[in-house]
Amino acid sequence: MNRDQPPRRDFLRYVGTLAALSTPALHAGASEKDKVEFPPIYDKSEKPEKTEPPADPWNERVGIALVGLGRITVNEMLPALAQCRHAKPVALVTGDRAKGLKIAHQYNIPESAVLDYKDYDRLAQMPDVQGVYLGLPNHMHLEYTVRAARAGKHVLCEKPMANSVAECRQMIDACRKAGRKLMIAYRSQYEPMDRALAGMVREKKLGALKEFVSVNSQNMGDPQHWRLKRALAGGGALPDIGLYCINAARFLSGEEPNEVIGNIWSTPGDARFREVEESCQFILRFPSGFIASCSTSYAAHKSQHFRLNGAQGWAEMNPAYAYRGLKLTVSRVVDGKEQATDIQVEEKNQFALEMDHFAQCIQQDREVHTPGEEGLQDQRIMEAIYESARTRRAVKLTPPGRTRGPEPQQEAG
Amino acid sequence: MNRDQPPRRDFLRYVGTLAALSTPALHAGASEKDKVEFPPIYDKSEKPEKTEPPADPWNERVGIALVGLGRITVNEMLPALAQCRHAKPVALVTGDRAKGLKIAHQYNIPESAVLDYKDYDRLAQMPDVQGVYLGLPNHMHLEYTVRAARAGKHVLCEKPMANSVAECRQMIDACRKAGRKLMIAYRSQYEPMDRALAGMVREKKLGALKEFVSVNSQNMGDPQHWRLKRALAGGGALPDIGLYCINAARFLSGEEPNEVIGNIWSTPGDARFREVEESCQFILRFPSGFIASCSTSYAAHKSQHFRLNGAQGWAEMNPAYAYRGLKLTVSRVVDGKEQATDIQVEEKNQFALEMDHFAQCIQQDREVHTPGEEGLQDQRIMEAIYESARTRRAVKLTPPGRTRGPEPQQEAG
Amino acid sequence: MNRDQPPRRDFLRYVGTLAALSTPALHAGASEKDKVEFPPIYDKSEKPEKTEPPADPWNERVGIALVGLGRITVNEMLPALAQCRHAKPVALVTGDRAKGLKIAHQYNIPESAVLDYKDYDRLAQMPDVQGVYLGLPNHMHLEYTVRAARAGKHVLCEKPMANSVAECRQMIDACRKAGRKLMIAYRSQYEPMDRALAGMVREKKLGALKEFVSVNSQNMGDPQHWRLKRALAGGGALPDIGLYCINAARFLSGEEPNEVIGNIWSTPGDARFREVEESCQFILRFPSGFIASCSTSYAAHKSQHFRLNGAQGWAEMNPAYAYRGLKLTVSRVVDGKEQATDIQVEEKNQFALEMDHFAQCIQQDREVHTPGEEGLQDQRIMEAIYESARTRRAVKLTPPGRTRGPEPQQEAG
Amino acid sequence: MNRDQPPRRDFLRYVGTLAALSTPALHAGASEKDKVEFPPIYDKSEKPEKTEPPADPWNERVGIALVGLGRITVNEMLPALAQCRHAKPVALVTGDRAKGLKIAHQYNIPESAVLDYKDYDRLAQMPDVQGVYLGLPNHMHLEYTVRAARAGKHVLCEKPMANSVAECRQMIDACRKAGRKLMIAYRSQYEPMDRALAGMVREKKLGALKEFVSVNSQNMGDPQHWRLKRALAGGGALPDIGLYCINAARFLSGEEPNEVIGNIWSTPGDARFREVEESCQFILRFPSGFIASCSTSYAAHKSQHFRLNGAQGWAEMNPAYAYRGLKLTVSRVVDGKEQATDIQVEEKNQFALEMDHFAQCIQQDREVHTPGEEGLQDQRIMEAIYESARTRRAVKLTPPGRTRGPEPQQEAG
Repeated sequence: MNRDQPPRRDFLRYVGTLAALSTPALHAGASEKDKVEFPPIYDKSEKPEKTEPPADPWNERVGIALVGLGRITVNEMLPALAQCRHAKPVALVTGDRAKGLKIAHQYNIPESAVLDYKDYDRLAQMPDVQGVYLGLPNHMHLEYTVRAARAGKHVLCEKPMANSVAECRQMIDACRKAGRKLMIAYRSQYEPMDRALAGMVREKKLGALKEFVSVNSQNMGDPQHWRLKRALAGGGALPDIGLYCINAARFLSGEEPNEVIGNIWSTPGDARFREVEESCQFILRFPSGFIASCSTSYAAHKSQHFRLNGAQGWAEMNPAYAYRGLKLTVSRVVDGKEQATDIQVEEKNQFALEMDHFAQCIQQDREVHTPGEEGLQDQRIMEAIYESARTRRAVKLTPPGRTRGPEPQQEAG
Repeated sequence: MNRDQPPRRDFLRYVGTLAALSTPALHAGASEKDKVEFPPIYDKSEKPEKTEPPADPWNERVGIALVGLGRITVNEMLPALAQCRHAKPVALVTGDRAKGLKIAHQYNIPESAVLDYKDYDRLAQMPDVQGVYLGLPNHMHLEYTVRAARAGKHVLCEKPMANSVAECRQMIDACRKAGRKLMIAYRSQYEPMDRALAGMVREKKLGALKEFVSVNSQNMGDPQHWRLKRALAGGGALPDIGLYCINAARFLSGEEPNEVIGNIWSTPGDARFREVEESCQFILRFPSGFIASCSTSYAAHKSQHFRLNGAQGWAEMNPAYAYRGLKLTVSRVVDGKEQATDIQVEEKNQFALEMDHFAQCIQQDREVHTPGEEGLQDQRIMEAIYESARTRRAVKLTPPGRTRGPEPQQEAG
Repeated sequence: MNRDQPPRRDFLRYVGTLAALSTPALHAGASEKDKVEFPPIYDKSEKPEKTEPPADPWNERVGIALVGLGRITVNEMLPALAQCRHAKPVALVTGDRAKGLKIAHQYNIPESAVLDYKDYDRLAQMPDVQGVYLGLPNHMHLEYTVRAARAGKHVLCEKPMANSVAECRQMIDACRKAGRKLMIAYRSQYEPMDRALAGMVREKKLGALKEFVSVNSQNMGDPQHWRLKRALAGGGALPDIGLYCINAARFLSGEEPNEVIGNIWSTPGDARFREVEESCQFILRFPSGFIASCSTSYAAHKSQHFRLNGAQGWAEMNPAYAYRGLKLTVSRVVDGKEQATDIQVEEKNQFALEMDHFAQCIQQDREVHTPGEEGLQDQRIMEAIYESARTRRAVKLTPPGRTRGPEPQQEAG
Repeated sequence: MNRDQPPRRDFLRYVGTLAALSTPALHAGASEKDKVEFPPIYDKSEKPEKTEPPADPWNERVGIALVGLGRITVNEMLPALAQCRHAKPVALVTGDRAKGLKIAHQYNIPESAVLDYKDYDRLAQMPDVQGVYLGLPNHMHLEYTVRAARAGKHVLCEKPMANSVAECRQMIDACRKAGRKLMIAYRSQYEPMDRALAGMVREKKLGALKEFVSVNSQNMGDPQHWRLKRALAGGGALPDIGLYCINAARFLSGEEPNEVIGNIWSTPGDARFREVEESCQFILRFPSGFIASCSTSYAAHKSQHFRLNGAQGWAEMNPAYAYRGLKLTVSRVVDGKEQATDIQVEEKNQFALEMDHFAQCIQQDREVHTPGEEGLQDQRIMEAIYESARTRRAVKLTPPGRTRGPEPQQEAG
């Protein structure tokens, strides 16, 4: 095997020279006219067949620099980019050059586009990089967002957005000043099954919402992992996984909580939880009387579930929040019988969907659906939960301004 | 059809004279020698066949007076008695004599054994009545327990035990002084699937328990129903259905909470919730770090679920708490794969199981598994939840003494 | 196939003139006026509450003699009788008097009503016995039906009806001549979930029926069991458990097969299958193009399932055929999504339902839903399956006359 | 049946000598040293984390020409190629150049690599094309395999392999003579859940296999579709979808049938089924006593299911055969309770897996797991089914030689 053999010349030209020409001008991405159609084959009682929506030609896709080559980038976002229709990986930023080169070879990224963190600002000179994806420890989100914005790059930042409300605000300000987009990677808000459920809620299929009961837990190992260091992670189970419950309660209901009750626990002597909380329980009261009761633990077996109760029906995700294999059940009375229905929505790669939304918003200069304000509001709620847990009292919250942009486009296919 | 025709003479003798003779003496009920056995028919890889355990001869069964002919008595306990092996219905107490007579005819109870509430104390003169089942509005539990004890009868009282800690204590005292048993009808503690799960917890199949997340809700109708009147019901969703979550968290873990956080809500203007709470959320902290997060609502669609997370696995009941159709799933990693297993425990009538336990304890003069102390402890917790909801602060709880008697006998079959 | 052929004359007579001779005096059983009603408690979006339908007063119930005290009688039918509203056990017939006495004591049956087989004809002198339930080895069905009819008793006979078409015909004739009812215990035809599915089929909820694919298997043990003796059982897996698949294909579709293909297999050297077949596969062609493909084995782990495919949807029972715990799922496209719905029909004791139907037909002198003609038709199909398996050729079948009486009454409750 | 017959000589040659001639130079693909590793993060009771296995650098991947741009190529194989680690799309062959160009732009394929069918032989001059994927109507498989082999290309051909045994043999011969690999696209044999089940069968987790009961159906629409034309499709439901049942029965059991019973049906007057069968049912007898009962229809709602019964347990796929969303349940008795376990195997793109296997076999000059002989054997069985359906008699089958190559490598990750 000849590992030194250069990539095909014409391909290089493709992803190099030509792509650069397409960078600045806005365009709408692949249009309906690019779609391949097939005549119907099944009876109309069958599920409508879907043809894959058209992908953008390679040279029109938004170039992304992946910053941080941890699990989420290597195991999720990079494979997902292969399924994207509007984005492509064009650069890597990592402190481990050997790892960076391995991955660059696999994904056809030139070695010259593998940067060290200290060279991060050189992105400014790489016109084929239009956006960055930050898959970094939480405490680095602020710095790498601000520097990206200064380098003229749009930012897709993993959640939690940062380690404090103050940091969130600096990130929003930096991107606003630079005129760059800031999107927080709330993948569930782009996931078709969650979106189908949100749609059913809006159509009052469950009646008035009353309760959200959810758990999101996993059992951590190595006490030295950065997620168990307060300075790096900002907290324990709550910001990492409990956050999903908060965000789901908000986006499924479309409401914002006005009062918060929190509780935290760490088992004395458990080396994993010297700095951050082992588990957190919280109650979120919303103005309409909708109330969320959630629990998250870093010491319980992987367990991801929610039940959403309305006056006239309930919905359940089991598992909820997972990268794949979500299952949505809705139960109501029909014809005098309780009927629990599995709503079969075709699974899509959630990372690809959020990345494509980010890329489309860049292509079309549209507002992102989950901007920094969305991450900031979750951070405000988490700070209130911690305060309540500390004071053993309920804590009130004022309403935020608008936290979300328009719904993602429903692409044909 | 001749509705006036008397029951068969010999049958009357059976349930009348003879039964009376057997009343006072203790006996062990049907024994193993009464069991009918069959030679095995299936390969040993099949589920072991179970032969129905032997029932007591009719004249040896414990005679029960059913007090209050509401839903739970008519639709659940009376049909369940037909499946009991140790108990039989011998008297009815009701304010609606016409209803009482209808039911008496169906269940072969003599008209002379249909009493009005005002004649309740006449039970003292009915030796074939050994125990009473109280299926009454909550505020009547105290009075009818005390009067039963004075009449020399054992008491099986529906939950919630009463409307206050003070009432619970009076009930316990009255029965203790009279030397009569007091059992609270916590049917889940006699239900095989819950018991199988409790057994798995004891055997550490899930590892150390960490979280219990549960909801128990239903959507009430008529604002005039007694369950929506504070003086009668003592509260709203919490004592009626939220109680299941409290009790399950306690008996599954075998622990008692030492701190409680509560929240209540009633939608302004909803006629159903002028007197009692619409919904209640609560967090129960247990000394080991096991924490329960629960929600109950009287305005949400029927929804009954719990997830019990241990360090090494989780269990789920979906539905939980229901009269029938419970489903238990346990998920752990086996051979490197997450394996979610439905544990198929043969369903039994829960009302029959609890009644048979009560009857066996009378027959054998044994301690009941869920005595008044068990109901009292739940009442203490509910009062703490209400106090926390009112003060918006966490409330501490001291540990109770022993609240449960020995485990129910595992009867062959 | 001649679809114009009139129903069999003798069947008409059976359900008409002769049945009218039935004694004792007709009566309607418990009526609606006996029903206990409760005011509604839940919101109307909840599943309508059901009050238990009224049971007959004890002295009006139909007295049943249970013939044969094997598993099905002791473990299923006797406990089920405690849940019946129209029937009661009043006599036992057994070759094992000690066992008979044990059971008599448990079920409050006088010792004088425990008969030996040789005393079976004494039933004629027991007026409180109106019907017999035959839970006997298959080869005894003929004799004990004929003797019951001669003794003036109605007959509820377990399936398979007998060991040959000829025997079935003798049973029908004997009952017709005696003016007694003959019902075959096809419990699935009285079971609410199967009936709900049959109703959906009639309403074309699945579109035109196309395929029925089913398996019903269990792993037998003791080679000496009567079910593995040809002279006693008439065959192996096919008549005992494969029969369920045949009957379900027929009653769910409402059609009769006109061509049959069969296959049988016994593992050489397996002591269990020296006399009867280990497994049987068969294809039933129905005139409309609906086709059933079924497999049954006496050497496979307990496995009970069917899938019923229509042009526009499918239904599944998983498990199917079981005594309890049935689950019905229906899948169709709704709003462009495949939706698989669990239809939650409240479980009822199937043995109680079929027995109550038998008792009501006696009380009201109505035609039974599953008379001898229903059992005869399954026997004809089984003989054709065996013939096909022997000849390795497809076998044609002529249509039967009408094989079923009217649908069982839908009792309130 | 002659079980002693040696494997076919020419097959041995095929996998041995001739394959070694394969060009270009052999290489091992990405190796373990290219793998990116992460330190463990979870407790060891959690499911082991998997890092994505390393992909080959782009220039080392096997170049594939996609022949035919129908549904399966456009909606499945092309998106799957983006997830491949060893293959890449480098050319398209289509009769619709406009469509070809659209797709070429999306997948970064040069316009010059979009060929018309008449230019197909020009592949011989395209060295970066190492293999072809034939997603063509069935009747074209023979011609395009033969021409590919002549052009020096390896062939991955969709199933059914061809329209007759004779055609299958010509395809095998042509590839053998040319020293090119021929693989049939039996994706289920590369799918992890099916493979996990096959592994359990080999380990006797279900005991001796006894029954396979399966259905695979869908409701066709347009009567003009090529799948409904005999000359193009070779048959109707059987070769298109019934084939899955045949193949699964074979590869899960590892046995070959020795007798076949078949039945076909087409509804008179249904325009869709003038040329090909609407539905087909078949029974496959295997020497051990394992027996498959299957049904397939082109006029029933999409329905895909199998149940595999062993002596000591059963397995179920529901759905089975689907492109995604498979679910595997295994039921056995554990601790005296029937336990039905969902085996959660991480879903992988089946098209990517089979394509990567094909590519790896080319890279390493290894024998493919599902060569032409595997497709030929299914074709022999289908012809026997049709013969049986025509003659209404069982048809015997002689055993094939070896039909499969070694198991696909279990790649780390």
